[in-house]
Amino acid sequence: MIRSVLERVGDKWSVAVVCQLGESTYRFNELRRLVSPITQRMLSATLRGLERDGLVSRTVHPTSPPRVDYALTGRGRSLLVVLRDLAGWAEAHAEEIGSSRAEFDQREA
Amino acid sequence: MIRSVLERVGDKWSVAVVCQLGESTYRFNELRRLVSPITQRMLSATLRGLERDGLVSRTVHPTSPPRVDYALTGRGRSLLVVLRDLAGWAEAHAEEIGSSRAEFDQREA
Repeated sequence: MIRSVLERVGDKWSVAVVCQLGESTYRFNELRRLVSPITQRMLSATLRGLERDGLVSRTVHPTSPPRVDYALTGRGRSLLVVLRDLAGWAEAHAEEIGSSRAEFDQREA
Repeated sequence: MIRSVLERVGDKWSVAVVCQLGESTYRFNELRRLVSPITQRMLSATLRGLERDGLVSRTVHPTSPPRVDYALTGRGRSLLVVLRDLAGWAEAHAEEIGSSRAEFDQREA
């Protein structure tokens, strides 16, 4: 079960969506613009997975047309802390990892 | 580039291998036993990806037959700290996420 949770929370789009939601509330198209280049289908599946895990709340407002808002739940916000560390680690090491990859590819060519 | 780093480090098998390596050194078959149910092919690809990113070192000892050891590099150990938090979060929330999934599936059935 832990592995299947890790599969969700470690997934790059889940990380991007959770970090983007942060402490705010967003509509689908706003998220789609901010978490580019995610496809509509991938964003829907990612949001649905996060909702299913109780990490994101989906609120439908009875306007016409209905307005749908997404936000992190309490559980989602507790994950946000860990994922911000992971994203921060990735950002801090991205350049040196890029060089390691280039060296490795040259060695293996 | 950050997304492609996240794709590597967030991948469930990378998380499992990095956490298993920890501060120790392992041979391939030991890792394969400890990080089950990973397939030989998946473990090879995961170790290769981690080596390419400079997170894991692969040392071939000139014995007969040659002995190959895997261990985290300094960069790998800095990632270990963050991934242990992620794995810890997953462990702490696995049960409640399981219940959320069951409720969601029932609602959507």
